[in-house]
Amino acid sequence: MPKTKQYINDHKDRFISELIELLKIPSISADTAYKNDILKTADAVKIALEKAGCDMVEICETPGYPIVYGEKITDSNLPTILVYGHYDVQPADPIDLWDSPPFEPIIKKTDIHPEGAIFARGACDDKGQMYMHVKALELMTKTDQLPCNVKFMIEGEEEVGSNSLVWFVKRNQKKLSNDVILISDTGMISNTQPSITTGLRGLSYVEVVVTGPNRDLHSGLYGGAVANPINILTKMIASLHDENNHITIPGFYDRVEELSLDERAEMAKAPFSLNDYQNALDIAEVYGEKGYTTNERNSIRPTLDVNGIWGGYTGEGAKTVIASKAYAKISMRLVPNQDWEEITELFTKHFKSIAPKSVTVKVTPHHGGQGYVTPTDNIGYKAANKAYTETFGVQAIPQRSGGSIPIVALFEEELKSKTILMGFGLDSDAIHSPNEHFGIFNYLKGIETIPLFYKYFTEMNS
Amino acid sequence: MPKTKQYINDHKDRFISELIELLKIPSISADTAYKNDILKTADAVKIALEKAGCDMVEICETPGYPIVYGEKITDSNLPTILVYGHYDVQPADPIDLWDSPPFEPIIKKTDIHPEGAIFARGACDDKGQMYMHVKALELMTKTDQLPCNVKFMIEGEEEVGSNSLVWFVKRNQKKLSNDVILISDTGMISNTQPSITTGLRGLSYVEVVVTGPNRDLHSGLYGGAVANPINILTKMIASLHDENNHITIPGFYDRVEELSLDERAEMAKAPFSLNDYQNALDIAEVYGEKGYTTNERNSIRPTLDVNGIWGGYTGEGAKTVIASKAYAKISMRLVPNQDWEEITELFTKHFKSIAPKSVTVKVTPHHGGQGYVTPTDNIGYKAANKAYTETFGVQAIPQRSGGSIPIVALFEEELKSKTILMGFGLDSDAIHSPNEHFGIFNYLKGIETIPLFYKYFTEMNS
Repeated sequence: MPKTKQYINDHKDRFISELIELLKIPSISADTAYKNDILKTADAVKIALEKAGCDMVEICETPGYPIVYGEKITDSNLPTILVYGHYDVQPADPIDLWDSPPFEPIIKKTDIHPEGAIFARGACDDKGQMYMHVKALELMTKTDQLPCNVKFMIEGEEEVGSNSLVWFVKRNQKKLSNDVILISDTGMISNTQPSITTGLRGLSYVEVVVTGPNRDLHSGLYGGAVANPINILTKMIASLHDENNHITIPGFYDRVEELSLDERAEMAKAPFSLNDYQNALDIAEVYGEKGYTTNERNSIRPTLDVNGIWGGYTGEGAKTVIASKAYAKISMRLVPNQDWEEITELFTKHFKSIAPKSVTVKVTPHHGGQGYVTPTDNIGYKAANKAYTETFGVQAIPQRSGGSIPIVALFEEELKSKTILMGFGLDSDAIHSPNEHFGIFNYLKGIETIPLFYKYFTEMNS
Repeated sequence: MPKTKQYINDHKDRFISELIELLKIPSISADTAYKNDILKTADAVKIALEKAGCDMVEICETPGYPIVYGEKITDSNLPTILVYGHYDVQPADPIDLWDSPPFEPIIKKTDIHPEGAIFARGACDDKGQMYMHVKALELMTKTDQLPCNVKFMIEGEEEVGSNSLVWFVKRNQKKLSNDVILISDTGMISNTQPSITTGLRGLSYVEVVVTGPNRDLHSGLYGGAVANPINILTKMIASLHDENNHITIPGFYDRVEELSLDERAEMAKAPFSLNDYQNALDIAEVYGEKGYTTNERNSIRPTLDVNGIWGGYTGEGAKTVIASKAYAKISMRLVPNQDWEEITELFTKHFKSIAPKSVTVKVTPHHGGQGYVTPTDNIGYKAANKAYTETFGVQAIPQRSGGSIPIVALFEEELKSKTILMGFGLDSDAIHSPNEHFGIFNYLKGIETIPLFYKYFTEMNS
């Protein structure tokens, strides 16, 4: 496909500069202060889709942030690919750990990205990976290679639970009808070893508040005599894992799929160095559930992590206070078969049950979603594998990811089609962290690989 | 002493408005942003002491915030009283829980203070109580009743550990020589039942940091596979108390004085309603060390409280992150005989020992101080009791307080004199909390009672 390589070569500088412009808009969905930036980003995506060749693009209002929908229907007898992505990004804090401002993208070379990487919040997750699809469409239309129909659905609430997308999908089954859903919001093993994500974990995200006395108290006058909500919260959270790091919530593991030893042996073949892993994170030891390897712990096993905790005096110096309230944000990653709503209920019931009478406890579910598995004998999987094999020169490895894209299970339920997760990011891209980045190699390789997926998927369907 | 009552009656409005002006300056010692306000407050105290009749007042520079020293020496053969107080205040946060701005004092009536109370940060702790002494000196000089010599030492770092005061006292033993030290920085049982604090708890205040991976991580990709510093911190803190709420640090209780059953029975005679206590705090149950009553738990027993905790994402909405670091501020209240430096060492050693290898732990001591006991057969105690008996019409009850004024133990060591703690605040005055206040009754009663202490202390010494 020399036309593809030629087009990328001729236009790559513009591809990069367009992405950089998009990354400058701080579309943080978790913080309402950025509402205007979210709307500005939706507009930018709409314009980009129009320029790339969509026949029709619209900004669809929802109860929350808008969804950008675009389509190019060439022939109703041809298959239709629905591309999903998101234009919102994670908050940038802790801001002082960024080497350059998160919304002033810069290109820097790294050991892993000798050709350079774009550093910015959202560079990989998901503006960069989403924009690969926009540019791939441009490439196919300009070089007359689009073999099928395409629809785009780009949302603005992925990082806060996709509530409005759920609302939208349930009301637009017909408009969104497709033969396969294509998403680039995951990673691959390395720049020389592509992989396709075949499993995602589900998610239940809750916020808890422990309230003790009706006001902050002097820790000298009351210390020892009343329940300190922070001490109680630490006790309650600590008790959620036992000494083997199993989660102690009754019923939590009831639906967990136990993989066979054969399946686990297959998984263990993926290249992995515990030493490199520990060195990259600067830790002396890994830590997790007894009886499972690191790669199992973060993919086929459910987990419970505190994502944030706060209470009392957190400023400079010392304040001898017993806080009235203590807070935590807690999320559980779930495996296929676990139902996130059931788990949220189990958590809530258990968490309240372990509180002493001296405090009151409130649990507020934030959002959640089901886990997902893509079978490798699916046409979409095969087409993706063939595309990767052609551009990377090596077959893709199927991989279970520890992350969650809760919407994927819903797609299957509402739209009756399978999702193919063609990720081009790397684990080291620091998504959700300071200094998030996305390799120029990966960005351009994605734009090169995606049209091949269109080609092989259409061929296999005919 | 009708002259005293007459003078207070004639000048009480000015006494109140002067205190209100002092309360308007946000002299928060814990936050360096308020440095200029601290210095402004020191100046205001200097001027007030000069006006009240001191012969000499000076602002003494220290490595930290200045100490205001003033004196009126009438006759070197007469006894000398050293008044100690502090002009710094606690931080005002959580600011949104204040009904009126913390540095815009207002007078409001309450059930406990039908004559009105001044609401402002520092109203009781300690600007209000410290200023009673300044006004008492004014009263004695203007009405020609000062029976002895007086020295004032008012510091600006009490709320952050009095480091500079320690430095100052060690270098000025001669200048500060005295026969008794008088402090109003504690409370009394009620407006009809005065009490004198005869015991203070010591304090060890530390800050801890638990560090896991070298950067914030995506909780989906890494969750379950690496130690989450927040989860680990909760586990470590939770383990500091056992199921009976005893502190588990080895050696922690080694020097703790065990009171006899007789002494405990004597303590139990102080008026106390568990129901009222619980209702005032809006809690269903108290909580504390097994085997001790509420009043024992917060006075004769050592305790460990988390004063602040933070880590990860604490903003609006949800962020699926594993934080690189988790933080807590932890303080221990100590009883007489426990050495705060030894306890700080025991804590540090133990806290580091319970960390898994997957994280690193740093413990930074903030400050501390020893506990203290005043014997009731001391002349100072007797003079104070006589003064209270005259103005309240009822004998004062000796009481152990849960709070700490670490400097008191040092005074005895360096200046070889006893401290008398004549507090006029109430437990319900919400010191260190939002809506701190100080009753007008208490303020004026203090100004009335203090000159009687001067009188009886001088008489008993002659």
